[in-house]
Amino acid sequence: VSESDDVRDLVARLADALRPRRAMLATAESCTGGLVAAACTSLAGSSDWFEGGVVSYSNAAKSELLGVAPALIDRHGAVSAEVARAMAEGLLARVPASFAVAVTGIAGPGGGSIASRWARSGSRPLRDPARARRHCCKRAAIARQSATGRSSAPSSRCLHGSR
Amino acid sequence: VSESDDVRDLVARLADALRPRRAMLATAESCTGGLVAAACTSLAGSSDWFEGGVVSYSNAAKSELLGVAPALIDRHGAVSAEVARAMAEGLLARVPASFAVAVTGIAGPGGGSIASRWARSGSRPLRDPARARRHCCKRAAIARQSATGRSSAPSSRCLHGSR
Repeated sequence: VSESDDVRDLVARLADALRPRRAMLATAESCTGGLVAAACTSLAGSSDWFEGGVVSYSNAAKSELLGVAPALIDRHGAVSAEVARAMAEGLLARVPASFAVAVTGIAGPGGGSIASRWARSGSRPLRDPARARRHCCKRAAIARQSATGRSSAPSSRCLHGSR
Repeated sequence: VSESDDVRDLVARLADALRPRRAMLATAESCTGGLVAAACTSLAGSSDWFEGGVVSYSNAAKSELLGVAPALIDRHGAVSAEVARAMAEGLLARVPASFAVAVTGIAGPGGGSIASRWARSGSRPLRDPARARRHCCKRAAIARQSATGRSSAPSSRCLHGSR
């Protein structure tokens, strides 16, 4: 089973979970740069359950597009559970989605990523169905892990390497 | 030369054009679902010139994340030069980027895409360096064309096919 088959299978399962609930997903990505959204929208019919997303690559974009407070980024760093949470919350405050996933990180050796998944509770984004976790991995691995949901698996492997 | 080599080469040329001008690029994507942003951020050092982007897959996301007026979408349709322009303008009004590219379309047979490239002029997004053009193409072709910039080439090929 190839990596792309893995992603395809996971996106199909995601669609199967969201569609009967009429639930919409939104994505907020930093280091993955749109790959999670692209993986979602690669499935035919994804407009039934994929609302949209933000690629907040720069810190300015995190603030301008998702309302993440610059002071929060200064205090905790862009690659932090606090910023991942703020990205997801900011997204859920802006789009009518039921669930949001946020990924923030730095690609390359020595980089890392934080993934945070949030569900809207009533009109406010409140519930964090999975704890944010820290990983160290190179860009391709971040993208793969994020796209397959493995970035929040308990056993993450450290995948240092050249970018 | 493979398709991914083509995209890599084009992104490298884009970086070479933007970096010496200290110009930042932002992307607003509908049918390409994040693939243009992902292509940009696949290049090491892209944070020097890539600000971020929005994947406004649903009409709600176009309005909520980019400020596209629902009435404009009703009047012209989501796949229109007017909406592509509004996506780019809305993005440039939100992020401190010098250039924006917007792509809107419907994937699959019978679908099509519109790409619009906009440059900020002073503090306001004003100048359209390339006319928006209409294409009919299946999703993979939209993604490839958008990522390589060929979606605004004068001679677009109609690539009807299954999604």
